[in-house]
Amino acid sequence: MKQRMMMAGLWAGLGWALATTAHADAVAGKMRAATACAVCHGPQGLSMQPNVPHLAGQPEIYLVEQLRNYRSGKRHHEVMSVIAKPLSDQDIDNLARWYASLQLSVQEP
Amino acid sequence: MKQRMMMAGLWAGLGWALATTAHADAVAGKMRAATACAVCHGPQGLSMQPNVPHLAGQPEIYLVEQLRNYRSGKRHHEVMSVIAKPLSDQDIDNLARWYASLQLSVQEP
Repeated sequence: MKQRMMMAGLWAGLGWALATTAHADAVAGKMRAATACAVCHGPQGLSMQPNVPHLAGQPEIYLVEQLRNYRSGKRHHEVMSVIAKPLSDQDIDNLARWYASLQLSVQEP
Repeated sequence: MKQRMMMAGLWAGLGWALATTAHADAVAGKMRAATACAVCHGPQGLSMQPNVPHLAGQPEIYLVEQLRNYRSGKRHHEVMSVIAKPLSDQDIDNLARWYASLQLSVQEP
């Protein structure tokens, strides 16, 4: 069962990898993020709000998928559904490239 | 418009803060994560898969909300909807406490 679920996840990932964001522009993404995202997700993608996720260093394909889901209505959130609505595919690819380019490190408490 | 959306986000956050996970147990969460989550999200909450998010250091309330959304069906994902189904409120609180306890640092490229 777990193996089948993992395969489903893997195939979904591969699908996104094939539709890769080849022309994404991290610099344009950084500029767009500064006005569209930073107020909630922080200037470096580290949220200061308890119900807002950090975006820094998240996998690019995951970010693209979630932004498209918000834009299409597949995933709903009061704020994000409005923010994502006017984003073009290129905007989404750029934003994802920028946040994914931030390097994360983790330390256990 | 942006201010109204921010207020909506803030109120949602406050609602979750009031329903805080006071009895969450990070050690129990760490143990549960090792068997239920690490295979996709990594042993320290850093995913190695392109369509799987990092969980390390995410805000506790955000993690609780997302796990509850997967469990209830409000948010859907082939794998997560199955994984979240059997989780109790206590399991969810413990997992969120564990992942939120991991300290993140970010470096620009």
